[in-house]
Amino acid sequence: MTNRAFYENLDAIDPLNSLRNEFYLPPDTIYLDGNSLGVMPLAAHIRIKNAVLQEWADDLIASWNKADWINLPMRVGNKIAPLIGAGQDETVVCDSTSVNLYKVLYSAIQIARKRHPKRRKIVSEKTNFPTDLYIAQSLCAQFDMTLELVESEAIESAIDDELAVLLLTHVNYRSGAIHDMAQITSLAQARDALVIWDLCHSAGSIPVDLTAAQADFAVGCTYKFLNGGPGSPAFVWVHPHHVDAITQPLTGWMGHATPFTFDTQYQPATGIRSYLGGTPPVLALSALDGSLEVFQKAESFGGMQAIYKKAQTLTSLFIQLAEKECADYGLTLVSPRDPERRASQVSLSHPEGAYAIIQALIARGVVGDYREPGILRFGFTPLYVRYIDVWDTVMHLKSVLQDQTWRSDAFSARRTVT
Amino acid sequence: MTNRAFYENLDAIDPLNSLRNEFYLPPDTIYLDGNSLGVMPLAAHIRIKNAVLQEWADDLIASWNKADWINLPMRVGNKIAPLIGAGQDETVVCDSTSVNLYKVLYSAIQIARKRHPKRRKIVSEKTNFPTDLYIAQSLCAQFDMTLELVESEAIESAIDDELAVLLLTHVNYRSGAIHDMAQITSLAQARDALVIWDLCHSAGSIPVDLTAAQADFAVGCTYKFLNGGPGSPAFVWVHPHHVDAITQPLTGWMGHATPFTFDTQYQPATGIRSYLGGTPPVLALSALDGSLEVFQKAESFGGMQAIYKKAQTLTSLFIQLAEKECADYGLTLVSPRDPERRASQVSLSHPEGAYAIIQALIARGVVGDYREPGILRFGFTPLYVRYIDVWDTVMHLKSVLQDQTWRSDAFSARRTVT
Repeated sequence: MTNRAFYENLDAIDPLNSLRNEFYLPPDTIYLDGNSLGVMPLAAHIRIKNAVLQEWADDLIASWNKADWINLPMRVGNKIAPLIGAGQDETVVCDSTSVNLYKVLYSAIQIARKRHPKRRKIVSEKTNFPTDLYIAQSLCAQFDMTLELVESEAIESAIDDELAVLLLTHVNYRSGAIHDMAQITSLAQARDALVIWDLCHSAGSIPVDLTAAQADFAVGCTYKFLNGGPGSPAFVWVHPHHVDAITQPLTGWMGHATPFTFDTQYQPATGIRSYLGGTPPVLALSALDGSLEVFQKAESFGGMQAIYKKAQTLTSLFIQLAEKECADYGLTLVSPRDPERRASQVSLSHPEGAYAIIQALIARGVVGDYREPGILRFGFTPLYVRYIDVWDTVMHLKSVLQDQTWRSDAFSARRTVT
Repeated sequence: MTNRAFYENLDAIDPLNSLRNEFYLPPDTIYLDGNSLGVMPLAAHIRIKNAVLQEWADDLIASWNKADWINLPMRVGNKIAPLIGAGQDETVVCDSTSVNLYKVLYSAIQIARKRHPKRRKIVSEKTNFPTDLYIAQSLCAQFDMTLELVESEAIESAIDDELAVLLLTHVNYRSGAIHDMAQITSLAQARDALVIWDLCHSAGSIPVDLTAAQADFAVGCTYKFLNGGPGSPAFVWVHPHHVDAITQPLTGWMGHATPFTFDTQYQPATGIRSYLGGTPPVLALSALDGSLEVFQKAESFGGMQAIYKKAQTLTSLFIQLAEKECADYGLTLVSPRDPERRASQVSLSHPEGAYAIIQALIARGVVGDYREPGILRFGFTPLYVRYIDVWDTVMHLKSVLQDQTWRSDAFSARRTVT
């Protein structure tokens, strides 16, 4: 593993490597930021072009029937279902992750209070993605609940007879660490609490099985590992035994049992369709519809199991090579060393230079990103990242560290968005 | 006005007619459904193509800075502002109308309860667009408020000292009737109540002046008269004296004061930016950004005043000609006869054939739509509908009625979506 040829050979024998042709990849770039925004699948481009020029421009309002816009949120949901272990017609795509989280946490709180009116505790992780905590804070204020934020290691001990709802992100956005969904869900349910899983960093990245874990609720975004395009709408899943128990609060016309009768009284649709609200962004949803085709093609190469297996190899090789080549430059591994506990990202920390090192790498065409505090994130999306990208990235990283190019003012000046 | 040449001449002398070239119009079609889904502006196509191929595909995550995605919801909001009489940085574009209505009605209820803790009454119109009523029902259940639905004529008498919030759609989706925003707002505020205006059928259709009316809150969609594309995100406006009074409940990361510090505690941004939640659909928002350019071009032709003036002429001519040519076929005018009370749509009713007549017209390339109960809707969007379209539409309508072609089974069979 100490020369480029070793990595070239791994690519040559990798069956998933052919799927790289399904994507447009910007020239002279090693893109390791698919955990923030996935690259464009060619099918997404074709699909959105058709949605714009045929469905909107030519067919206009007739597309509600002709292009089946009315069922698009459910159809796209059913394409995501196999990636998250959901059954048919249990997933719908609409709104943002934040909005969908509001719906499911609202529902979870109502169910929890019916079961145990005195329980007030919602538990989440201190290092959960902030938007999840913000939504939880809003609903806690509304329903007089208490949000308890704990460290990752303390989650299990926070599961007690006071717990109403446990809200966790399956894969940590900073470290890439994976929670044991089945085990934690089971522990929480043993105390009669409800569990919500945020799958933003797991859907399309690692195998997920909501049905096997008997999870209660899940949400997730589609613009990271699902490559749906910037701000593509999010998905929401509710276990069938909860889905009709509570009317979620964002009761828009698309979630009505009979949306075209224009009743004055809201009557929720049965099943996950009731988690729809207003008119979804059809063009964005169409791009996502196209993007998901690559996962259907990946089925014949072993699907999510094969994708994740390659991610583990890519990240393991990256860690080994970086630790060998870049020793003595102050980098520390933030991600779990055990590949079974790590999703498809490697996070490193650097005491003073993390932000500037990332900028220096970007200037060389190696795109990772920076996250507070002091973390360099590298996402390895096996559908389009190659083994030679591991080698080349480490060589660039070594060069930036060795030459101390990152100490240039050009790389340390903060931009608005990092 | 009894021959086609009269209408051809009106087009020839109409300065707005040149703006028709800014749109793609499907061949052999008279499109009178811009009040449901506007046609595609050419600039929208160019803008979304650039967002897909340059901003997403090539620049990827760098577009948050380079293409200023982070400020796109505010920039697009500022393009809508002059069309609704909003000040700079008072409008933001994100989420759906239903979701935005939830935010503002939630805020309005909190403000109302601080002012008058015992007031429980929210008033809306029986014929308001159903999604508005559904959202109101949801929040009424949450906050122990009562939704009172009244007929249009009874709105003023429902404004009393029990009223907490008045929620009205400015232009009725079925009839096209316009409420007097300034007068009703003033009456409600005289009783210390708050007023929310839904501008779905007014923004881009008739002049709106939220500032002059001193309205409290407004929301509206962008895919009708603003031609943003199917399901393009909605706008939300909050009067500056309310905007920082309440934290709206959908507290996503984009509405945080410092979204990139990843604080665990939500701290709302100041101003309307706090009404942002999750990541908005950038591709859909980009299409809308392009679509709005035509309104900037329309400024040199007299802007919204000139657009609405033409709409009044188009709809008045349509009513006169239809009543003359199609008398004795059972059509009744549903829209106000007074052009000052009518937006840019004409609704007719037919006791038995409304649905089938619309289908027969669509088969002839004249696209209006059907709404329960028994209403034919014809939207006249002055930016791309011509005077000769009025003549041709009436001639087609007359022919369908005279020959009774609408009685064919092919036209009466209901599709899923109407």
